[in-house]
Amino acid sequence: MKSLGGKGRIIFTSGGSESNNMAIKGITAKLKNPTIITVSTEHPSVLSTCKETAEESGCKCIVINVDNKGYVLEDELVEAVESADSPLVSIMHVNNETGTVQNIARLSKLVKEFNNKCIFHVDGVQGFMKVPINLSETMVDSYSISSHKIHGPKGVGALYIKKDNLIKPIVVGGGQESGYRAGTHNTHGIAGLGKAVEVYTERMDEIHSNMRSIKKTIVDELNENNLDYVICGDDIETSAPHVLNLAFKKIKGEVLLSSLEQSGIIANTGSACSSKKVKVSRILSAMNVDRNYIEGAVRLSFGAMNTVEEAKKCADSLVSSVKRINRFS
Amino acid sequence: MKSLGGKGRIIFTSGGSESNNMAIKGITAKLKNPTIITVSTEHPSVLSTCKETAEESGCKCIVINVDNKGYVLEDELVEAVESADSPLVSIMHVNNETGTVQNIARLSKLVKEFNNKCIFHVDGVQGFMKVPINLSETMVDSYSISSHKIHGPKGVGALYIKKDNLIKPIVVGGGQESGYRAGTHNTHGIAGLGKAVEVYTERMDEIHSNMRSIKKTIVDELNENNLDYVICGDDIETSAPHVLNLAFKKIKGEVLLSSLEQSGIIANTGSACSSKKVKVSRILSAMNVDRNYIEGAVRLSFGAMNTVEEAKKCADSLVSSVKRINRFS
Repeated sequence: MKSLGGKGRIIFTSGGSESNNMAIKGITAKLKNPTIITVSTEHPSVLSTCKETAEESGCKCIVINVDNKGYVLEDELVEAVESADSPLVSIMHVNNETGTVQNIARLSKLVKEFNNKCIFHVDGVQGFMKVPINLSETMVDSYSISSHKIHGPKGVGALYIKKDNLIKPIVVGGGQESGYRAGTHNTHGIAGLGKAVEVYTERMDEIHSNMRSIKKTIVDELNENNLDYVICGDDIETSAPHVLNLAFKKIKGEVLLSSLEQSGIIANTGSACSSKKVKVSRILSAMNVDRNYIEGAVRLSFGAMNTVEEAKKCADSLVSSVKRINRFS
Repeated sequence: MKSLGGKGRIIFTSGGSESNNMAIKGITAKLKNPTIITVSTEHPSVLSTCKETAEESGCKCIVINVDNKGYVLEDELVEAVESADSPLVSIMHVNNETGTVQNIARLSKLVKEFNNKCIFHVDGVQGFMKVPINLSETMVDSYSISSHKIHGPKGVGALYIKKDNLIKPIVVGGGQESGYRAGTHNTHGIAGLGKAVEVYTERMDEIHSNMRSIKKTIVDELNENNLDYVICGDDIETSAPHVLNLAFKKIKGEVLLSSLEQSGIIANTGSACSSKKVKVSRILSAMNVDRNYIEGAVRLSFGAMNTVEEAKKCADSLVSSVKRINRFS
């Protein structure tokens, strides 16, 4: 796939979660005496899958910590990789809640330098088309993508694999996808993903620059109004363009969300798929976000169709909501 | 789901293959010391999955034979079930190549009578909406369906499970589908499946009666023209309405197919998903179809939009093709 830059194979799946499950379970099944190494801030389709797969196959699972911007602690990673026989390392490209971008080119080289048997999987669901990548300049073995994150249809995704014989399939039967994934193809979904990639590629610079303006507009207005908040993750220029995680002091995130919703702004305290389950984000906890702020976190994410005008409205709503909530508490 | 008649839960999947994999792998993982019992004429998403799952989990896999109409040999089935600790039995409702309909109500009761720990899975991909079923009158524990088999969109299906805690998920991560299947929902696909069920249900009697007329039209014309053929499976009134498998004496099926294709009739010698792999159908081999006929098998299948007029055209084309091929050989 040209947009990934790699020379491997694309296997179409039903989405990012399946791609991650397929990679982690499928690679583990191919390795002898594997150790699964992943990171505390991974998406559940990686973290839960790693833990469960390790338990099922009786192998070790090591979870690496992150610093307060969400970056993988490289010393911990190297130590884990060095001590393992056949390590499978799974690290996400871009964090879904904070937009922190891991340097997967460097990390993939690093782990293979310390253990040349290492296999390196990347959950690229939030990175694909948001942060340009050329897989041929990395040592990444597999990379998951999801269609609806780039405005393609839901229910379709893909797994890039660098070479054949890397994974054992998780859905077997008919010989579709060269035997890697059985089942009648989701033809219109795959076509939709292809079209989304085409359109996103053509407009990528414009989309990214617009998203960066959106982030700047919001942060500038918060600063002008002297709101007490922190950005969870790295600064707005360094993190991925489409995510902005703001944590306001001594405010409950869910109260702020409900106030934003009245202005037509739909945000979340954590990730969409965990929205019904937790009050404090485990991602922000893993990053040790200051406890005076952590409960007041809202994650804003932007699509290719959002405008700076909407960002102004969002910022206004944030400012007035936060001020109102502060008055009442 | 009203159209299945059961009182269990529907889990949406990416299609029939995933549903079958989920059921077989997911139930096996829940059983202690399981024996997997299936049938020689099952779809690869069942047969391969059973064999592979047994190998992976170190348990036994028993493959039951069928008679010459494709029906499960009940004596063999009972013997296998009786001798097993925790049997998982997987039997398809309707065979995709022959249309043979297993009596899943009787079979599900039979196996549980001889072993009350038995779990009974049905691959209902070809049976759903083609052969009416009321799961509450059976002892079926799980039932797979596929959307595109009833003119819904591709890339979506479902697994019915009778009760909770029956299966261990194969795709883990976010808590979608009550934790049974992680991944963002294929919302438009699921809506499409729902609409297809609605339309098919309304028109079911008309569709079935039309399909039966189509089968009768074709068979009548073959008989009037004294072609030498056998019907693979049970007779046209007893088998499922949408499949007609005809095997012509001393003819190569693929030659006949290419001749039919010139008249705009697309058929297959076996199943669509195996079309590139085999010359003689393993289903027909398992049924011991006469070797003078087996290589001349073509499988015709009909959709809700096919007409009797098209059936006449198909029959004409079959007659003239068979006669022409016979002249040349």
